[in-house]
Amino acid sequence: MFFTPPLATLRRDGSALVILDQTELPWRLVERRLGTLEDVLEAIVALRVRGAPLIGVAAAHGLALALERDASDSALEAAIARLLATRPTAVNLRLALEAQRNVLAPLPPAERPAAAWAEAERQRRDDAARCEAIGRAGLPWIETLARRLDRPVRILTHCNAGWVATCGAGTALAPVYLARAAGIPLEVFVSETRPRNQGLITHWELTRAGVPATLIADNAAGLLIAQGEIDLVLVGADRIARNGDVANKIGTYLKALAAHAHGVPFLVAAPATTFDPACPNGAAIPIEERAAEEVLTVAGLPPGASDPVPVRLTPLPARTRNPAFDLTPARWITAILTETGAWPAPLAAANTPPPST
Amino acid sequence: MFFTPPLATLRRDGSALVILDQTELPWRLVERRLGTLEDVLEAIVALRVRGAPLIGVAAAHGLALALERDASDSALEAAIARLLATRPTAVNLRLALEAQRNVLAPLPPAERPAAAWAEAERQRRDDAARCEAIGRAGLPWIETLARRLDRPVRILTHCNAGWVATCGAGTALAPVYLARAAGIPLEVFVSETRPRNQGLITHWELTRAGVPATLIADNAAGLLIAQGEIDLVLVGADRIARNGDVANKIGTYLKALAAHAHGVPFLVAAPATTFDPACPNGAAIPIEERAAEEVLTVAGLPPGASDPVPVRLTPLPARTRNPAFDLTPARWITAILTETGAWPAPLAAANTPPPST
Repeated sequence: MFFTPPLATLRRDGSALVILDQTELPWRLVERRLGTLEDVLEAIVALRVRGAPLIGVAAAHGLALALERDASDSALEAAIARLLATRPTAVNLRLALEAQRNVLAPLPPAERPAAAWAEAERQRRDDAARCEAIGRAGLPWIETLARRLDRPVRILTHCNAGWVATCGAGTALAPVYLARAAGIPLEVFVSETRPRNQGLITHWELTRAGVPATLIADNAAGLLIAQGEIDLVLVGADRIARNGDVANKIGTYLKALAAHAHGVPFLVAAPATTFDPACPNGAAIPIEERAAEEVLTVAGLPPGASDPVPVRLTPLPARTRNPAFDLTPARWITAILTETGAWPAPLAAANTPPPST
Repeated sequence: MFFTPPLATLRRDGSALVILDQTELPWRLVERRLGTLEDVLEAIVALRVRGAPLIGVAAAHGLALALERDASDSALEAAIARLLATRPTAVNLRLALEAQRNVLAPLPPAERPAAAWAEAERQRRDDAARCEAIGRAGLPWIETLARRLDRPVRILTHCNAGWVATCGAGTALAPVYLARAAGIPLEVFVSETRPRNQGLITHWELTRAGVPATLIADNAAGLLIAQGEIDLVLVGADRIARNGDVANKIGTYLKALAAHAHGVPFLVAAPATTFDPACPNGAAIPIEERAAEEVLTVAGLPPGASDPVPVRLTPLPARTRNPAFDLTPARWITAILTETGAWPAPLAAANTPPPST
């Protein structure tokens, strides 16, 4: 391991699961102790645990908590169904729970709780190893740039795909953390990622890990790229189609267009589970439309306040559109980084193993 | 006149100037009565009056207020110098005051106050007529789209270049208001324009003028354009180089890239005074870097509050970059709309008359 996160995003503590509550970031550092399946369900639904890999591992732990109370066949299936329902489209969640079922179903109920904890821990360690492998796949780009430049390598990222969203070094940020651990001078530009401002979490986690981070408005990415101030763009992915088209946080596509226009490498990092072999191309990926309130509201600290409050940006009953993701065609993607290496986008799907947890 | 703004952004009331205070928008509708030169200076510096055309006309009125007290040669020059210093790079401000000087300097001091009010009023009416002409230059694009489509024409805009920023129908939004007045069904998508959220003002002014408006995060423009949900992009300009490169609010360039990638017309609207014949191309335009606080702060209404407060987005002493403008190369611009018509971007500078007020 080259990179150890400054804090555990998720850890077992006796018969409880302790998580870093991401809804409190970047305002406060709050760990929450989840003692029951219901606690875990609430934490996933409320986005206290977010990031595709982390949700899967948290659900695997939630199942262990459920089995501590009732490890019968029917309880096992009921708990899996309830966990699956929290984020119906999250593929990692489904895979994590299917892996648990494969381990647990053949066992007598009495042996299931211990086995569930063990499988959850295996998944946690696997996730950390996967992050590390993704980081190694991207590291050569940063190393090459560092050799060419007589200043720190400048990397642009979007949304949050770092250690906070995984059990290890993150996905998009894994190459950054490995490069940092290798002593390569670099800095990261972070777009704030309206409407939910996940960039603030990214800025927080980079700073916490000792990586120089500069926050920018989402609008500023075009100028910075055009002026040669960005050497590399690194983003995550929510879903990757068979042809290499990528669905990721809204705003990703604009950065890909700018990177392409100015010859800046645009790398997408994601575990192999993010590939959806059933999806032929980006046009087949449904785009989730989220609540209007997200566009009209930010969370922030008013002067003198100690607790962040939701703040309404406009008093009008404004009409909004709020798509959560956009689509970046494979042709604008320099490479996709997965745990099996770095692949040109159209080939990445063909060269990654079938999904497994 | 086809379009009359729902409210006067600026009007003379006896020996005072009454302005719509833009720092209160979209929260509250506040008119401020400016009785002295000092009041006008403060209003311009504090951005209560904003928008290049409106600043010039406000300054012309401010000069009349100053001359009501002292109309000597030295007082005239002192007042012009103080008004010029409020926004040193605003070309309209300089032209408005030079036009006043040309009228006033030859007159005996006793005749200057009345002449200054008259010239200020002429400039106000000229600005309204110029907006109308810019609107007519852009109207054919909307008419053509309306004939082709069996649904309302969907237009994307950025920042605020509407009636609130002028004495008439605005610049970028003038074609929208003229089309609306002509009964053409249309709707406008407004990007919020972080970090200062001028899109909220645009959303407010469109709604106030009866135009259906949809607010979006800046990040959403790429997806909406890619999905064919935008028929036309209309933006303003802060400065236009001799080759047609355009400096406009940060985030404009990303929209131009997306519009070009998907064959959507991208129109820039601005009075001819926005052309800077001394500037050969975009690379020669200096980009203002504004305060970090803008990126880290939004203004908003916390729950239960009646007054908007500044809200800090992150408690970290975060490093930021905050360029106020970006550059859109002429080759991505379908046409530039001015009071003399619609011109392909590289030709627009050659075909517009020399700046005059």
